[in-house]
Amino acid sequence: MQRKYLAKIFVTLRPSVLDPAGVAVQSSLKQLGYDNVDSVRIGKYIEVIITEPDERKARQNLDRICDQMLANPVIENYRFDLIEVESQTGVF
Amino acid sequence: MQRKYLAKIFVTLRPSVLDPAGVAVQSSLKQLGYDNVDSVRIGKYIEVIITEPDERKARQNLDRICDQMLANPVIENYRFDLIEVESQTGVF
Repeated sequence: MQRKYLAKIFVTLRPSVLDPAGVAVQSSLKQLGYDNVDSVRIGKYIEVIITEPDERKARQNLDRICDQMLANPVIENYRFDLIEVESQTGVF
Repeated sequence: MQRKYLAKIFVTLRPSVLDPAGVAVQSSLKQLGYDNVDSVRIGKYIEVIITEPDERKARQNLDRICDQMLANPVIENYRFDLIEVESQTGVF
């Protein structure tokens, strides 16, 4: 039996890495009058739908996908939430 | 009294909008052997720290910041979670 999982993946810069894009947004916000914004950090949010036999296997493959393709482990961290969205019994 | 809030902002393409970057990632994953990935959608994840007197005011300003700067309302949706991280009483 195959199950469909929705992975909500967050890729963020490691705290020690500078984020020039975030600094630029913060500076633009200041010019717009938002001088109460103390920090802006910009990351990626990726939704992946994957078909796997079980959650363990899904987590395993998503870890590999994040390491190989979605995140740069040298400067970025990632984490994901996994939600089962649909089961396929192969009967229909 | 001023409070510090951490806003975790998710900016996603509207479901009806094509995501060429997501399609490219999905296609690359297929070439790497992950042919069980059904869909990839790429959005932004932004962390903002903002100082406001209360949560209502923080939500109001974050809505304006998202509309004006972080999201393109024509093709993107946004939502955010708000967490109070620190209070400043002005005493210290």
